[in-house]
Amino acid sequence: MKYSKIPLSQTVVALCEAQNIQHVVISPGSRNAPLTIGFTNNKFFKCYSIVDERCAAFFALGIAQQLNNPVALVCTSGSALLNYYPAISEAYYSNIPLVVLSADRPKHLIDIGDGQTIKQKNVFGDHVVYSTNLKLDLDEESVNKNEEELPIFKSIENQLERFLGLQKDIQSYNELEIINALNMARLNSRPIHINIPFNEPLYETIEHPSITVKDYEVLNRNEDFNDDDIKACEDIWNGADKKMILVGVLPPNSIEEDILNQIADDRSLIVFTETTSNLNNPDFFPGIDKIIAPIDDSGFKELQPDLLITLGGLIISKKIKAFLRKYKPKHHWYIGLNNANDTFFSLSMHLRIAPNRFFADFLPKVSIDKKSNYKSKWIDVRQKRRKLHDSYLKEIQFSDFVVFDKILSTLPLNSLLHVGNSSAIRYTQLFQLRKDISVFCNRGTSGIDGSTSTAIGASVISDKRTTFITGDLSFFYDSNALWNNYIPNNFRIIVINNGGGGIFRILPGHKNTDNFDTFFETKHNLNAKHLCKMFGFEYQSANDSEKLDSCLDTFYNPSAQPKLLEIFTPSRLNDEILLNYFDYIK
Amino acid sequence: MKYSKIPLSQTVVALCEAQNIQHVVISPGSRNAPLTIGFTNNKFFKCYSIVDERCAAFFALGIAQQLNNPVALVCTSGSALLNYYPAISEAYYSNIPLVVLSADRPKHLIDIGDGQTIKQKNVFGDHVVYSTNLKLDLDEESVNKNEEELPIFKSIENQLERFLGLQKDIQSYNELEIINALNMARLNSRPIHINIPFNEPLYETIEHPSITVKDYEVLNRNEDFNDDDIKACEDIWNGADKKMILVGVLPPNSIEEDILNQIADDRSLIVFTETTSNLNNPDFFPGIDKIIAPIDDSGFKELQPDLLITLGGLIISKKIKAFLRKYKPKHHWYIGLNNANDTFFSLSMHLRIAPNRFFADFLPKVSIDKKSNYKSKWIDVRQKRRKLHDSYLKEIQFSDFVVFDKILSTLPLNSLLHVGNSSAIRYTQLFQLRKDISVFCNRGTSGIDGSTSTAIGASVISDKRTTFITGDLSFFYDSNALWNNYIPNNFRIIVINNGGGGIFRILPGHKNTDNFDTFFETKHNLNAKHLCKMFGFEYQSANDSEKLDSCLDTFYNPSAQPKLLEIFTPSRLNDEILLNYFDYIK
Repeated sequence: MKYSKIPLSQTVVALCEAQNIQHVVISPGSRNAPLTIGFTNNKFFKCYSIVDERCAAFFALGIAQQLNNPVALVCTSGSALLNYYPAISEAYYSNIPLVVLSADRPKHLIDIGDGQTIKQKNVFGDHVVYSTNLKLDLDEESVNKNEEELPIFKSIENQLERFLGLQKDIQSYNELEIINALNMARLNSRPIHINIPFNEPLYETIEHPSITVKDYEVLNRNEDFNDDDIKACEDIWNGADKKMILVGVLPPNSIEEDILNQIADDRSLIVFTETTSNLNNPDFFPGIDKIIAPIDDSGFKELQPDLLITLGGLIISKKIKAFLRKYKPKHHWYIGLNNANDTFFSLSMHLRIAPNRFFADFLPKVSIDKKSNYKSKWIDVRQKRRKLHDSYLKEIQFSDFVVFDKILSTLPLNSLLHVGNSSAIRYTQLFQLRKDISVFCNRGTSGIDGSTSTAIGASVISDKRTTFITGDLSFFYDSNALWNNYIPNNFRIIVINNGGGGIFRILPGHKNTDNFDTFFETKHNLNAKHLCKMFGFEYQSANDSEKLDSCLDTFYNPSAQPKLLEIFTPSRLNDEILLNYFDYIK
Repeated sequence: MKYSKIPLSQTVVALCEAQNIQHVVISPGSRNAPLTIGFTNNKFFKCYSIVDERCAAFFALGIAQQLNNPVALVCTSGSALLNYYPAISEAYYSNIPLVVLSADRPKHLIDIGDGQTIKQKNVFGDHVVYSTNLKLDLDEESVNKNEEELPIFKSIENQLERFLGLQKDIQSYNELEIINALNMARLNSRPIHINIPFNEPLYETIEHPSITVKDYEVLNRNEDFNDDDIKACEDIWNGADKKMILVGVLPPNSIEEDILNQIADDRSLIVFTETTSNLNNPDFFPGIDKIIAPIDDSGFKELQPDLLITLGGLIISKKIKAFLRKYKPKHHWYIGLNNANDTFFSLSMHLRIAPNRFFADFLPKVSIDKKSNYKSKWIDVRQKRRKLHDSYLKEIQFSDFVVFDKILSTLPLNSLLHVGNSSAIRYTQLFQLRKDISVFCNRGTSGIDGSTSTAIGASVISDKRTTFITGDLSFFYDSNALWNNYIPNNFRIIVINNGGGGIFRILPGHKNTDNFDTFFETKHNLNAKHLCKMFGFEYQSANDSEKLDSCLDTFYNPSAQPKLLEIFTPSRLNDEILLNYFDYIK
């Protein structure tokens, strides 16, 4: 096997292997050559080469999200690293572990006018849970250069001895810092940053490693709660007449079927599930906005829960946020290993325990209310809205609304669905997805900057096929995502092109003025055809229902290339139809 | 005129106008609506809409670089801001003033699980010279919300009075912070960040502003040196037998012609000019690498200066860095208003004075050596290399080297040339550019992440026509640059497509292995044709000398669209020809 001659590179690579970080996304560069050599010559690692660091980081995010395990990113010095930042912030807020390994120049070459050099230390601020600057290995050159780390050698006789002792200290320091960083990534399920200085020569290799690393345990996330908390919870639960569970982003299969059924049995408990919750039960309430949008104040008072339990990541529905901020629950518990958000300014308890385990332990201890009419009343409302939803669909013209209905109902069985921000995921929330579909969306920061790359990362690692549904702005923003040699042929993209940022029409702006068109909606006449030619996607397009149906008939058939379907919809009509929808379902 | 109803938005806009910040690059969003409304409804401002914030920031950089005046960037909350960072770091190291105006949520909505929300405060770390978080305006809603800034109002009677007093304090605080930030941008010629919280409603407008701002002077950069320093300099200069001036990035016309001639008269003084210095004189030494690459140690000892004077921004030539670090000058002065880099670990003096003024004052006071043979000897060397350069060109096959010779010699008269990183600028350095060409390159961080956007920014604002020469990786990296409605029809792009990162072949890697091709050179089969179709560029291509000559014959003719010329060159041969060049010119 081949190793970089630089001990620090060997240490980083060896510890990543020992800590089971198998996937490494590398962007080209020279300063990072010692890492690139180390990772790509070791068969343990699956390495990917992605040029645009912004895409590389979102691609890694898509992989890490599927694996629920840290993925490494390797880049060169200078501004390269900064292009990771959008994905790092998404990973931070979505609790996805990314390990950034940035190559850097030695300290004495920073801020003295050398090229491709910035202040890389701590560059991700509070959006990583650990940030460390490793120490440069000693070498003859650095001895001559009077590195800051180096004492002055008093006599030539013991120079070698001192040199070796000092290098051993540096080696221990670096090892410990790397392990601390990797542990933090895993324990918090959040990104970390390891900045790694290398001196030239960068490209030299050896056949046998010159270092060995100690054994470190691979840590797992800890549950952290005490029995008193649980006891207090039992009392509150049993005393609450109206209980609500609200579920944000959750990985598929987070809670077992029979636990979901037990939860569904309680008539004093409503479960609102977001599309990204991947939780399904006939008694639950998906499509939150559809249900609560038409509710007035007296309705909200009736719905106001005594106890709110939230699970999972960030909540998409603005309407439920507004509702619960105004009609605060008496108690709000967050159940989960991740940090708890006080989204409704009423958080009273955080139980650091996986939701499945919590309910498995907890439900047998508390009373399950089978008499309350809290839920049944809202089931009637839900039923009414669903009927109106269906009849509305029969009345309206071809538009975003119709398109989402068609594409969501024809997704392939047991497949992954990635959805872009921002109107794409909001439309998706209005429909009821099939149980066999797993849904993902970058809701940590809700950016449009890397959804395509994330979906491609997922498609590369998942054994399920992946469909990505996106708006046009989001798609063009991340078009470099397609510059990627790893996209499976069964990957599918659906671009809903309404000629600009449809979300801005939904918001209360100053519509149909030049200023609105240019600076809010950002109108354009672009389409995805040329990008498909450039990057080897099969391209199809539709601009009416008939064409769309016929495209969808064969869209998921096996193909020799990945495919993209672009659907053109009328922007002003989209807006009208969506607004009317909320009137109609009242 | 229309104004945002939000006083803070009015304040920001009014102060930008008063401080003569005329160009505003806006990316679409909702949280920034108050700023977008304010800027776009005021005829003083020239506003641009660019969706991808990474491109937006580099585009603004290109404008600011030409104007030598701050340019504003406006974006929404969340990860949008982070996409500015690569350009912010470039601006920081290239001393270009950018004013980032990021919209944010009010403090109480940060880190509680709201969408599109990150920790925006100080997000650019040490890569901005000022960073401030403005305070939220008071309004009825925020009074109800018990904002952190709000005291508890004890009685209803004086609530309004207290409210108004408090709002006045907030207004004064914000005004002062904005002025401080804008002053810092101008005085340091570097980027600053103003983070601006807005509460909903965001879209309301009024016909007359509800605030007025005080008058503040528009500050200019100060010279800062004392006569003792100058006196000391005179003695050192007069005592130095071998003097060297090394000029990095300088704007065109930084030093007057007759001063350049006086400098050229001194026979004990060598002036090494980089391509990006925009300084020309027949007695100067452009093409540094060509001249010093073949020099051996005894030659370097002879060349070693007693006094080194550096001017301008970062140095491209690695060879001169290596030379001057090993053969340090006794004295090194940096002359200029920007920060001085101690690139050669020998900086002894920084005179904060514009180079032109320094030399105009200084040269009459010191002796001009007309007898030394320090320079004449190196002029002979230069002459020899130039001849060998010319004869080498006649011998070699079609390759990057030939292509650069052809395209650099046929640039339109009096035009701007933007050059991409990294092999593109390194090749350009080997040729002698015409005096009428102004050259720019993003050498602050030497990234490939925004060169096209920067060139387009320059082309939009300059009254000269702009040509951008780039390698393929750099071009595809920043392909969203072309998603821009402001590109003039006379803008020209030349992509030298050698199927990957040519620079990595020049560096001492492990060539021609699969690993090298994938992870270093990052081979691809992409071309620019489809992007041209997508974004309305006229496309031409060439893969031999004859085709290239015939393209260049008409390439700069007036056209109804901007144009792109893609030149395909053989990657392995390029590498050979460049390596042989340095042997040949010895």
